[in-house]
Amino acid sequence: MNHDIVRHDKGPIMSSAVECNGMVFLAGLIADDTSKGVRAQTEQVLSKIDALLTACGTNKSRLLSAVIYLDDIRDKEEINKAWLSWMDPSHPPARACVQASLATPATLVEIMVVAAK
Amino acid sequence: MNHDIVRHDKGPIMSSAVECNGMVFLAGLIADDTSKGVRAQTEQVLSKIDALLTACGTNKSRLLSAVIYLDDIRDKEEINKAWLSWMDPSHPPARACVQASLATPATLVEIMVVAAK
Amino acid sequence: MNHDIVRHDKGPIMSSAVECNGMVFLAGLIADDTSKGVRAQTEQVLSKIDALLTACGTNKSRLLSAVIYLDDIRDKEEINKAWLSWMDPSHPPARACVQASLATPATLVEIMVVAAK
Repeated sequence: MNHDIVRHDKGPIMSSAVECNGMVFLAGLIADDTSKGVRAQTEQVLSKIDALLTACGTNKSRLLSAVIYLDDIRDKEEINKAWLSWMDPSHPPARACVQASLATPATLVEIMVVAAK
Repeated sequence: MNHDIVRHDKGPIMSSAVECNGMVFLAGLIADDTSKGVRAQTEQVLSKIDALLTACGTNKSRLLSAVIYLDDIRDKEEINKAWLSWMDPSHPPARACVQASLATPATLVEIMVVAAK
Repeated sequence: MNHDIVRHDKGPIMSSAVECNGMVFLAGLIADDTSKGVRAQTEQVLSKIDALLTACGTNKSRLLSAVIYLDDIRDKEEINKAWLSWMDPSHPPARACVQASLATPATLVEIMVVAAK
């Protein structure tokens, strides 16, 4: 039962991804360039998710769940456009989408996912 | 370590439930009839959780954790009444309850749970 | 696949911690003494996390993910001071930090973690 843990991109405060027992826990990810609008920020976040899932030896077809935090819930349709362009339509995760103020006032979206290896 | 994944109620954006490795991840669920107050909306959500857990071959006695998002945290006591009527008192999950604006202004509660099979 | 479930500190509404399949799900934890500021409240929460992880036979070096809810996202630097004093720097979890109003107006921080045994 004492499963090994592998941590990726260890920083002083958090890891970007943690593997354990065939599952992958990603950090809440935000865009690096917050001068962009919510759709472009979402695209940046989804690219980060792809890169981290790859580093963990998995990919978006194995997403289990996602929580999307939006600075303004009225942006939901905009982020859904980026989400629908990105997500594997045969393998959608469970998802929640709620409003929350984020790291900086310019940060419009943060996404935290769990995936299987 | 490459556990099978089973997805329920696959829609274009998300699945309502995802099974993997003996665990079940449900989507953030909201009431269909948002003309109702917060307690009745909570009851609708809890009924949806029951149905999805059944579809996954499990039930509320095997809940592991729950996050409850409330449009107004002052509604916490009202949702707790619905929660207490519903929850298996011998098997309470870990739980968090926080305020967040939700899909529509009339959506007063959203619940996202993880259960074991 | 029907893993045993162990629940700790079962109350009428929730358990403080739930073990299943080598993983530990803690409740969203808040400070008992909310007369204190956000840093001291965070320290109280982190002490509770330590105690619960110990009760589950694990510890903070095996944290997988954490979600931190802050009443005011501008307090992030203050809670990070408590976090950095506490966290095992060799084993940082994945983490998200978002703003949400919490149980009472005086409750400034709530933290919900998942750990491995």
